[in-house]
Amino acid sequence: MLERIEADYLIETPGDTEKAADVMAGEQSSGTFAPIPGETVELKARSAARVEALELLEEVASPSLPGSIAAPGSACRRARVTLSWPLDNIGTDLIGLMATVSGNLFELKQFSGLRILDIRLPEAFAAAYDGPKFGISGTRSLAGVDAGPLIGTIIKPSVGLSAAETAAAVAELLEAGIDFIKDDELQADGWYCPFDERVKAVMQVIRSHSQGTGRKAMFAFNVTGEVDQMRRRHDLVLAEGGTCVMVSLNSVGLSGLLGLTRHSQLPIHGHRNGWGYLSRAPMLGWSYIAWQKFWRLAGVDHMHCNGLSNKFAEPDESVIASARECLTPMFDSKPCMAMPVFSSGQTVHQAQDTYQALGSADLIHAAGGGIMAHPGGPAAGVAGLRQAWDAAMAGIPAGDYALGHPELAAALKAFQK
Amino acid sequence: MLERIEADYLIETPGDTEKAADVMAGEQSSGTFAPIPGETVELKARSAARVEALELLEEVASPSLPGSIAAPGSACRRARVTLSWPLDNIGTDLIGLMATVSGNLFELKQFSGLRILDIRLPEAFAAAYDGPKFGISGTRSLAGVDAGPLIGTIIKPSVGLSAAETAAAVAELLEAGIDFIKDDELQADGWYCPFDERVKAVMQVIRSHSQGTGRKAMFAFNVTGEVDQMRRRHDLVLAEGGTCVMVSLNSVGLSGLLGLTRHSQLPIHGHRNGWGYLSRAPMLGWSYIAWQKFWRLAGVDHMHCNGLSNKFAEPDESVIASARECLTPMFDSKPCMAMPVFSSGQTVHQAQDTYQALGSADLIHAAGGGIMAHPGGPAAGVAGLRQAWDAAMAGIPAGDYALGHPELAAALKAFQK
Repeated sequence: MLERIEADYLIETPGDTEKAADVMAGEQSSGTFAPIPGETVELKARSAARVEALELLEEVASPSLPGSIAAPGSACRRARVTLSWPLDNIGTDLIGLMATVSGNLFELKQFSGLRILDIRLPEAFAAAYDGPKFGISGTRSLAGVDAGPLIGTIIKPSVGLSAAETAAAVAELLEAGIDFIKDDELQADGWYCPFDERVKAVMQVIRSHSQGTGRKAMFAFNVTGEVDQMRRRHDLVLAEGGTCVMVSLNSVGLSGLLGLTRHSQLPIHGHRNGWGYLSRAPMLGWSYIAWQKFWRLAGVDHMHCNGLSNKFAEPDESVIASARECLTPMFDSKPCMAMPVFSSGQTVHQAQDTYQALGSADLIHAAGGGIMAHPGGPAAGVAGLRQAWDAAMAGIPAGDYALGHPELAAALKAFQK
Repeated sequence: MLERIEADYLIETPGDTEKAADVMAGEQSSGTFAPIPGETVELKARSAARVEALELLEEVASPSLPGSIAAPGSACRRARVTLSWPLDNIGTDLIGLMATVSGNLFELKQFSGLRILDIRLPEAFAAAYDGPKFGISGTRSLAGVDAGPLIGTIIKPSVGLSAAETAAAVAELLEAGIDFIKDDELQADGWYCPFDERVKAVMQVIRSHSQGTGRKAMFAFNVTGEVDQMRRRHDLVLAEGGTCVMVSLNSVGLSGLLGLTRHSQLPIHGHRNGWGYLSRAPMLGWSYIAWQKFWRLAGVDHMHCNGLSNKFAEPDESVIASARECLTPMFDSKPCMAMPVFSSGQTVHQAQDTYQALGSADLIHAAGGGIMAHPGGPAAGVAGLRQAWDAAMAGIPAGDYALGHPELAAALKAFQK
């Protein structure tokens, strides 16, 4: 059983890699340029970070980031480094962990590149946090979807609709047979579409529709805001019979999120907007593998992972690695599994590849244009997407399955691969 | 008077810059790949983001970031773009503003680089938030420092000292005449040095010392944690007669911070650890100019800005631009001025350059080794640093001033420039 906190990094340095790893460990546990009187042998034994592993990787012709001690155009060496810390330094404090594993590391002159790849936490952390309260089974149960992905969509246009117009859009989507709908992350509590009004108008439509079908579509209302606001908004959603709230994780931060999850009785849909600034430079920032562990342990039930063939800069293998990680247990005593959310430019064409790469349909597959722009209308859009997944899960090529399923056939033709 | 929200970006694109700017505006106000039925002319007029300005900059030989539509090695064009949004989209919601000005922009394939440079907010935002409750004058008054910088330091070793050992270190610093002390950001509420014990032990020393001198040094206790924890810790600091609390801004996030500032009766010392991952890639992420406005409006009184000749990757001109911005009013009705904090490898050698570049001594100048490693001991360290500032503010070269001031003379000699 792990007794120390561990973190893996990809580093790049013009100097000696072992010395650079020692600088990392020093910066994250004692940290000044002059020797300190109080820094005794006992104190170091008790509190110092340790370099647990160092694997040399390739040499590169020039530094990836400016500001290091490397002269421009001089060669740098990459390595994979594992550091560890005694649990006593911070206890099971997930927020304190941020400064410990990340902190000032990214700015150190010794590095022309530094990226955090993964973290591993002692089991004691599992007891200190709830993790996702609903996760996969809780989400399936609330949405009434036993197998296959939840077919989802995002209200568009993202902003500009009134509460009544939003409710009308929801009514159309419910008629189309949708499982899951979310606010766009740009839709908050603006004067033209106030949160309370939107919740009431949308939930009236959802409640009334569910009386006919016996199944209640899940709507993720964007509660992103101050902690007190999020709690109040959550309570309104709950009172109106809603089954999900959405949060922009990077906007609220870890303390903000915990302020909601400590209170919440609904699944938390975690939107990662802003993820690009944390991750897009290959030799800087965060890998999703490390980042998502904070949020899952803090209680997020659904984690955005982008989608295959997306409109963004992320390659497909990164998308799949992210989603797979959300479905990988974090602790023996508390797996903290979160439902991955696939979105961005999604159509019937991604179902088979997604299922094959992930080996699971425990996910939300959200499509905007891929549903609304179906030539047969939204109902055909939802049906076609569901058929694409039925085919994928049955191991039948979509083209073959489309012969007996006209909505899928039309979608395969209408949307570009 | 500004009626719309504005943001400036540095972009880099292999394609047409005007088209790329339109994609940004679309992504941040309607956002899907297929035309949407509800996206009427009225809705667009009401809610769409607008491209307000576009200034072409240099061409670069190859894309700065991977994942764009640019082929590797193909030329890209940089530009400075200003977008604007109607206030009605989000109201005066500072947290919602994060998704609006940042959101998914950094991931768009159209861009091989995208960095947010600045934001400008309508005056209505000033009424919705407190801003710094103490700022410069409040901090000076609590610390009993009328003019010149607050001479500060950080408890080192960062972690590993017990509460009693921390208090003993504080006693030594008080004897040395220090104005300001802070916890290291790695020091939270670990089992070896629990927060409550540390506050009680340290404040006993500070209270008792202030009875002799009539002046109470300011100690920034690291309250970083969940919102309820931060409030409780703040209350303890206040009850014990403490005058400052510290928060790791990137660890708690904007909602987390507001959870504290809505409650706080003490100056908030804002630590920016993690800043490197937001800023170090030149064509990605955040400029400090844009980023710090969120935190100041949310109530941070002291903003970390790094220091001249620091041990990190940041160049001096960026440090000075950051500090100058903290001293620049945000709104006519609410200037939100925060005290810049200079730290990292600081000694007497940076006083003159800092004062000349900034044109102000409204700052905290924090030195670790630059005080503790003075050959005459910490008291001489503090005295030397204060003398260096006296010289700078009087326009006397440090070398000349050192003739009558032995602590400064010893420091100039002991520390490398």
